[in-house]
Amino acid sequence: MRTKQEYIEGLSKMKRNIYHNGQLIDRTDELQMDCLNTIGTTYDEAAKPENQDLCTAISHLTGERINRFNHIHQNKDDLHKKQDMTRMLCQKSAGASSAAWGSTNERDLQCSYEADKVNSGATKYHENFKKWLIRFQTEDLIGCCAQTDVKGDRMLRPADQPNPGAYVRIKERLKDGIIVDGCKVHISEASVADEILVLPPGPCDRGQRLRGGFRRSGRLEGLKQVVTIHNLRRGSITNGIRSGATDSYLISTTALSLGKGIFGRRTSAWRCLCTPFCLFHRHSYSGCKPAIGDVILGMAALAAEVNNIHKQSHVREKLAELIMTIELGYAADTRHPISVNRRSTYRFRFCTLRPRSFIPNSIYCNVGRCSRRAVWREAEILCDLAGGVVATFPTRGTSKSGHRRSAPQIHQAESEHVG
Amino acid sequence: MRTKQEYIEGLSKMKRNIYHNGQLIDRTDELQMDCLNTIGTTYDEAAKPENQDLCTAISHLTGERINRFNHIHQNKDDLHKKQDMTRMLCQKSAGASSAAWGSTNERDLQCSYEADKVNSGATKYHENFKKWLIRFQTEDLIGCCAQTDVKGDRMLRPADQPNPGAYVRIKERLKDGIIVDGCKVHISEASVADEILVLPPGPCDRGQRLRGGFRRSGRLEGLKQVVTIHNLRRGSITNGIRSGATDSYLISTTALSLGKGIFGRRTSAWRCLCTPFCLFHRHSYSGCKPAIGDVILGMAALAAEVNNIHKQSHVREKLAELIMTIELGYAADTRHPISVNRRSTYRFRFCTLRPRSFIPNSIYCNVGRCSRRAVWREAEILCDLAGGVVATFPTRGTSKSGHRRSAPQIHQAESEHVG
Amino acid sequence: MRTKQEYIEGLSKMKRNIYHNGQLIDRTDELQMDCLNTIGTTYDEAAKPENQDLCTAISHLTGERINRFNHIHQNKDDLHKKQDMTRMLCQKSAGASSAAWGSTNERDLQCSYEADKVNSGATKYHENFKKWLIRFQTEDLIGCCAQTDVKGDRMLRPADQPNPGAYVRIKERLKDGIIVDGCKVHISEASVADEILVLPPGPCDRGQRLRGGFRRSGRLEGLKQVVTIHNLRRGSITNGIRSGATDSYLISTTALSLGKGIFGRRTSAWRCLCTPFCLFHRHSYSGCKPAIGDVILGMAALAAEVNNIHKQSHVREKLAELIMTIELGYAADTRHPISVNRRSTYRFRFCTLRPRSFIPNSIYCNVGRCSRRAVWREAEILCDLAGGVVATFPTRGTSKSGHRRSAPQIHQAESEHVG
Amino acid sequence: MRTKQEYIEGLSKMKRNIYHNGQLIDRTDELQMDCLNTIGTTYDEAAKPENQDLCTAISHLTGERINRFNHIHQNKDDLHKKQDMTRMLCQKSAGASSAAWGSTNERDLQCSYEADKVNSGATKYHENFKKWLIRFQTEDLIGCCAQTDVKGDRMLRPADQPNPGAYVRIKERLKDGIIVDGCKVHISEASVADEILVLPPGPCDRGQRLRGGFRRSGRLEGLKQVVTIHNLRRGSITNGIRSGATDSYLISTTALSLGKGIFGRRTSAWRCLCTPFCLFHRHSYSGCKPAIGDVILGMAALAAEVNNIHKQSHVREKLAELIMTIELGYAADTRHPISVNRRSTYRFRFCTLRPRSFIPNSIYCNVGRCSRRAVWREAEILCDLAGGVVATFPTRGTSKSGHRRSAPQIHQAESEHVG
Repeated sequence: MRTKQEYIEGLSKMKRNIYHNGQLIDRTDELQMDCLNTIGTTYDEAAKPENQDLCTAISHLTGERINRFNHIHQNKDDLHKKQDMTRMLCQKSAGASSAAWGSTNERDLQCSYEADKVNSGATKYHENFKKWLIRFQTEDLIGCCAQTDVKGDRMLRPADQPNPGAYVRIKERLKDGIIVDGCKVHISEASVADEILVLPPGPCDRGQRLRGGFRRSGRLEGLKQVVTIHNLRRGSITNGIRSGATDSYLISTTALSLGKGIFGRRTSAWRCLCTPFCLFHRHSYSGCKPAIGDVILGMAALAAEVNNIHKQSHVREKLAELIMTIELGYAADTRHPISVNRRSTYRFRFCTLRPRSFIPNSIYCNVGRCSRRAVWREAEILCDLAGGVVATFPTRGTSKSGHRRSAPQIHQAESEHVG
Repeated sequence: MRTKQEYIEGLSKMKRNIYHNGQLIDRTDELQMDCLNTIGTTYDEAAKPENQDLCTAISHLTGERINRFNHIHQNKDDLHKKQDMTRMLCQKSAGASSAAWGSTNERDLQCSYEADKVNSGATKYHENFKKWLIRFQTEDLIGCCAQTDVKGDRMLRPADQPNPGAYVRIKERLKDGIIVDGCKVHISEASVADEILVLPPGPCDRGQRLRGGFRRSGRLEGLKQVVTIHNLRRGSITNGIRSGATDSYLISTTALSLGKGIFGRRTSAWRCLCTPFCLFHRHSYSGCKPAIGDVILGMAALAAEVNNIHKQSHVREKLAELIMTIELGYAADTRHPISVNRRSTYRFRFCTLRPRSFIPNSIYCNVGRCSRRAVWREAEILCDLAGGVVATFPTRGTSKSGHRRSAPQIHQAESEHVG
Repeated sequence: MRTKQEYIEGLSKMKRNIYHNGQLIDRTDELQMDCLNTIGTTYDEAAKPENQDLCTAISHLTGERINRFNHIHQNKDDLHKKQDMTRMLCQKSAGASSAAWGSTNERDLQCSYEADKVNSGATKYHENFKKWLIRFQTEDLIGCCAQTDVKGDRMLRPADQPNPGAYVRIKERLKDGIIVDGCKVHISEASVADEILVLPPGPCDRGQRLRGGFRRSGRLEGLKQVVTIHNLRRGSITNGIRSGATDSYLISTTALSLGKGIFGRRTSAWRCLCTPFCLFHRHSYSGCKPAIGDVILGMAALAAEVNNIHKQSHVREKLAELIMTIELGYAADTRHPISVNRRSTYRFRFCTLRPRSFIPNSIYCNVGRCSRRAVWREAEILCDLAGGVVATFPTRGTSKSGHRRSAPQIHQAESEHVG
Repeated sequence: MRTKQEYIEGLSKMKRNIYHNGQLIDRTDELQMDCLNTIGTTYDEAAKPENQDLCTAISHLTGERINRFNHIHQNKDDLHKKQDMTRMLCQKSAGASSAAWGSTNERDLQCSYEADKVNSGATKYHENFKKWLIRFQTEDLIGCCAQTDVKGDRMLRPADQPNPGAYVRIKERLKDGIIVDGCKVHISEASVADEILVLPPGPCDRGQRLRGGFRRSGRLEGLKQVVTIHNLRRGSITNGIRSGATDSYLISTTALSLGKGIFGRRTSAWRCLCTPFCLFHRHSYSGCKPAIGDVILGMAALAAEVNNIHKQSHVREKLAELIMTIELGYAADTRHPISVNRRSTYRFRFCTLRPRSFIPNSIYCNVGRCSRRAVWREAEILCDLAGGVVATFPTRGTSKSGHRRSAPQIHQAESEHVG
């Protein structure tokens, strides 16, 4: 298992293809440091003896101890621990890096992959995948999953878009691979990941055109990332961590993916991939979103104490409402988890990696996710209790080069000033 | 009536007491230009012949044409026009300057002032005020109203605060004036106003200690403003206007207010001042908040068109919901306005300036204001229709010096990425 | 103008075609008395000298004093008075009869009718209508408007329904009239009205098949009403009135409408009729719904007082929320009313009765109506403040013949018992 | 274990003290039959071989098979099964009897009782309780828990009430028991229960005055029940069950409780009783409330199908919202259950019956309960999808003796008619 330092060094050796504000930057540019700190925390915490049970696991493939993020769930308890680890880590980094944990569980989702069945044994995708997974576990990598296509005209299917790059697509098939074209957007932590798994357009995108998938690496030609960097307000240090997050807009014009990086090119197999990604992503939400809620709850409670209103009944009622939202989302995670051995009720052909792999129940994953629609209500409560200072804090703006407030912030200021 | 240019020149001559990011800056510093543009628009528009009826009025004191913002409502129609002017101006400046209109109608509120009655003729407050108002109208000034005290421990009355500056207070009474001490916070557009009317703590602050009030001018010693500057994202130009807004934290240690600037020092008279400020501020909300809603509605509709989902029934339902919120707040403005001649039902002793002055009805002002609690829902709808790009737009960040996203923005990003 | 007694006597002479619980009943059956009392109140109140201005008006057709419900709005003030009269009457009858006022303003809607324009003078519809209206005003009748068709399969247009009675339709055209077939449902107060105006399916029903309309009278053959009677709990007497309401399911198999009862048979003309019915119905809502809100508010405040919690801040906040909903709906009524003389922006060809007829603005009518979606929240607040007794009041159930609680009531009980 | 028939026969032998509509009635009066059917279903289902695992358990006291409702949870699985049994039974009886399951788990709560510790061995309460529980399990009884006091003036403590009956209290202490006085209200299913456990006023009632508790039986003098009967609409038969529910208002003027029926008279011990009652009641909610949601969901889906709108996206979204509420409440039940062996974090002194008794986690019980605040939203969705027929169904009203609609029903009718 790597250290945070080894992780950052690994990134520094990757090909430069990250653009920020029109400039090509290093992955380890100062601008990215807050996000690197955040991801780095997962290495620091996993190395602590007291976190061994929570943050690491024994690989069912190699028998070695690995980071739990790279583990294939072997039982219900693994699902619970993944959730609890996520909540703990997101609390530590002040909620800023929540997206990170969502993206990393791309590692988990591989469990669902087995396209060979579809090909009646003509392909070696499953073996390819297991080799890839073993390397991933051993090298202790950070992955991210590129799911969201730019989408263009939402009323048209991928193949009918006037701009063909609106969805990723196979531009050319080579003997030993594919050339892929198109854009992905809102890809959290792509700029600090070791590998990106690019998914084809999903079933909800009204049709699949890309009948394959590929793993990006920094070596591939023609892939650019335009990165948006979201760091917390300078000076905000929580638990010793300066937290941050990034989103990337991936532009691929001639991304070449060689055969060994391809896990499947059949639609039916890919369908297996998209749905469980959502499943695991939502399972991760059941850990990271409650943690964000915990941070908001803590801020709201602190603000109430500063104003000395924390004992007033209407304040307690609002804090209780925050707790309700947080814990409902947490509780929903692993009710009735499903062992992929037994006949599952999922309507997609579900593919087992090996006996005793466990996946979350899709109903509970999804209702837990839905409970997060309360984000606006949470922000409203926080502003109610903290007052206008949330919007008008005078030391925020720092440079003449001028950053600007977004509409929601202005709104918030308005709603608090006077009325 | 002044031009925008004359307004800005006027500010440039004021004493420098504005601090930003630890630096003393000019009122006409580049950082403040977006906000100056926004306020300046009120001069530009008032000068256009086609806006004469909407944006100007005839002073009942001098018979001269003045900016409607400085006018004392003479009839119901004046109330309607004030509202419609406010909505038009806020639409023009993309909603960014909404707070400005709220603060400027401080000019209106003077109509309620007449403390002399309380003093049985011993004072000349009313005459003082009329002189002041005539000058204000003639010089075509921008005022703002400093209402919100820092407040400290919310469970203690002003006089019981451990930090005496938590509420403004009279530190010393001179023969011809008072020396005032304490802080105000969240004072919108104070840094670009010609005059500030400082209110004493209001009835809702559980007691009044300051039995007087005073008008600040740049000449007064010992008053500092720490300003927060909220400009729209660089590059966002709406209707030819680069919009912005500011909030000030006013720190007064030895503000001296000479007698001629004082309009009243009796509690009962001050009570007259605080309540109508809220009344008129909320009346302004009935114009500026619908305008912000209009801007959000326009953005949401545009985003829906870009995604080609604008004809889908669930999208139309959301746009209709925005319209409902906007127009309910607008409709509530001047139902049953009150002529201050006739016996009013207000529980405060209400003081007439002269016959035929009209004030908004407090019930409808307040319910219109309450409808604005929907700001969070509006932001949610906008994000629903626009998608994650609201949060992850890659060209936002501009400098390495690093601006940072606030929690609501992160939330918003999260809620849109994948789920 | 009639008395309540004359109104009831008039009903007693009508042909018996009302069915309740499988039995043919008189219009003046004891079961209908609470509803008759409620409608009767409109006669009692109009006869009081102190209500003359509010509840009566001068007919622009005859110059005689008439009930305001039968008046064609001549100015903005008429719209306001109609609203205020409605609110007063609904408060008096404890909100029970709100639907009644909605239906009676069918009388208003006639103002929109003038199909002759469409027919280039070939028909006398407008003259027919004026004669009918004069008689209606002079005889001081109660009308109701049958709008809602049964609708059947909501995805099919009227003409495509497997059950042809799902929408009313013209079965046969006679030389001097039409034979109409089909069902209407949820027709408030039809069982206590003197006349029913049957509308054809509206534009929102995806196509009009019925190209005419007709006025029902008790003499027509083949029309049956199956009535549902909603009386308040026995023993509940408010302001001396035992209130009630009814809904009818109208079944017409061979309703014959002679020419003189027909106001128009052209689609384009009918479109004029449907839309303003909604317009005026929603205008009525702006009076009757706030009145229902007033009753709920009064009950909630009374319950809070009984429990001695009315001074607690969270209780006051809930009462304030009720006020907000009530007054927003009230305020929205007549903002920017439209004189039908001037070029209107309505997208339907709008037809003037005569100069200076005024109609409500459709945007504000509709947003006012939308604010009534808060009914569930109002019920929730009432239950919160009153406690479980709302659901478990022991003297409610009275007879072994066994009436039963609906699901919402049980819910309410549940939500209050313990938790 | 008893049969439904034996249960009903048992009730028929109890002393007559149930009043309905001013009349003394038998417990097996026709009016109560729907509720008896509902409770009876718990006997019928427990007797089915296929339900043995779900609906019965092995007593840890006697080793005999007993109804699961009377079982003391021995492990986490018992908690899950109790929840699933409750959901199944409430689905079967169309949700009508939800309150019943809440009341029956009073049996569970006894597990928390052990006042002897407080008395340093001077009393035999624990032995008394075990004897009572063994009898309860063996005779297969139905219990209910009388918790809610009438409460009177909510701002006064029990001892300060002008009406001493507002809270139950000990009127007199006898050598071998107590005489109790006062009223309880909203006691679900008290009129069909074999025994009632009367709780003293709880900690949230701002003080305990009653330092004891007692078990009611039909033999006690001076206890009267005034019952409200809530049966479903006549003709509504679900799964072969005519369902109903009752609430009782208990009036005790001289209820005598002999020593052997008393489980504890010390405040500190009673505190143990009140809190876990809520805990278990809320745990029951996590089964019965989702079942009510299931019934509403089924009705809403059926209504949508009848209207042929079930495939429309806005309808599917509403059905999904129902599912979210239902399953979040269900999921929250037994996250982190607590074994009462280990040091618990409950702030009340918690008393173990014996090792391996399991109780639900109070946070998750409570947030699951809170999710039920959505009842109003559920009713709104149901009415949206079903339309006005929910309110105007013509065959509902049945007799001239006149039952009446409640305000929520009228509201519902209004909101659906036209707008």
